[in-house]
Amino acid sequence: MPVITIEAGLVNKEQKEKLIKEFTKSASEIIGLPEEKFIVFIKENADENVGVGGISLLELKSKR
Amino acid sequence: MPVITIEAGLVNKEQKEKLIKEFTKSASEIIGLPEEKFIVFIKENADENVGVGGISLLELKSKR
Amino acid sequence: MPVITIEAGLVNKEQKEKLIKEFTKSASEIIGLPEEKFIVFIKENADENVGVGGISLLELKSKR
Amino acid sequence: MPVITIEAGLVNKEQKEKLIKEFTKSASEIIGLPEEKFIVFIKENADENVGVGGISLLELKSKR
Amino acid sequence: MPVITIEAGLVNKEQKEKLIKEFTKSASEIIGLPEEKFIVFIKENADENVGVGGISLLELKSKR
Amino acid sequence: MPVITIEAGLVNKEQKEKLIKEFTKSASEIIGLPEEKFIVFIKENADENVGVGGISLLELKSKR
Repeated sequence: MPVITIEAGLVNKEQKEKLIKEFTKSASEIIGLPEEKFIVFIKENADENVGVGGISLLELKSKR
Repeated sequence: MPVITIEAGLVNKEQKEKLIKEFTKSASEIIGLPEEKFIVFIKENADENVGVGGISLLELKSKR
Repeated sequence: MPVITIEAGLVNKEQKEKLIKEFTKSASEIIGLPEEKFIVFIKENADENVGVGGISLLELKSKR
Repeated sequence: MPVITIEAGLVNKEQKEKLIKEFTKSASEIIGLPEEKFIVFIKENADENVGVGGISLLELKSKR
Repeated sequence: MPVITIEAGLVNKEQKEKLIKEFTKSASEIIGLPEEKFIVFIKENADENVGVGGISLLELKSKR
Repeated sequence: MPVITIEAGLVNKEQKEKLIKEFTKSASEIIGLPEEKFIVFIKENADENVGVGGISLLELKSKR
């Protein structure tokens, strides 16, 4: 029943499949519960909705 | 002030109204706080963003 | 695989059993998925860690 | 590494920039860690996905 | 009904009161909703339960 | 700035270090961002605060 959530930017379908697979595999081995017990949620966030150091990623990228 | 959140797949408007109503009613009765104090968030997730047992719901459904 | 989380104050064991049972039953009926698919997390918060209207519940209760 | 998340309704770009800036500034000063360490996520929710007192914001607004 | 959550390390009572007050005040002004509508949750995490760059804060601090 | 959170039962220190290390390594490779950008939170939950299929883990284990 463990639940793993990643808050990230936009990720493509292949990356999603890999994140789900790898997180589940690692956690299953480390915690010692079967893979079927694990749920993964991938949460995608637009650059304007994420801030680092007080500035949105949107603004940060526009300044580079 | 309790906050109830459900992470689910896509749900329609009628289901949303019912989830909000039922969760609030049950929690209000069990905890003993008035219904006005409760907030509910319904979070919808695309099949490709949810994994069970290391595989996305998108892939799981395509294999059936 | 839906995941229901409630952020609340302290609740006793009987209340926890009831919250888990009622949330799962309601959501299962409304969404149309079997009860086994649902996970519930009950998160308890001390009064000093929750604020309503800019004031902690600890302070609010001491002022009553 | 502190992470601040706000669950809100829809907010515009200017409000997002301000929320990120103000939350980071306040938290940095209060906790005593440099602003670079703070991450902010702004989560926007449609009115039909938020309930207060057992009724969705969508229904509440339509009744006014 | 907006809900603001901060995931942090351990913070003292005075810091908690200030975080609740400042987050609520800023968000109320920026979003344009009365302060009473805002809920704040402060989540404290032990150093061994937080990782940055693949290493726990516990290990990071022991290496300094 | 991606943030990975696992909601689990109780885990020991060695498991925590491994979860932090493995989640960060996998996500860094898949998403293509340096490991320093990733934050991991490990959230531990008592058996009475987690429900699967409408029954708490506490009750489930006592019935075995």
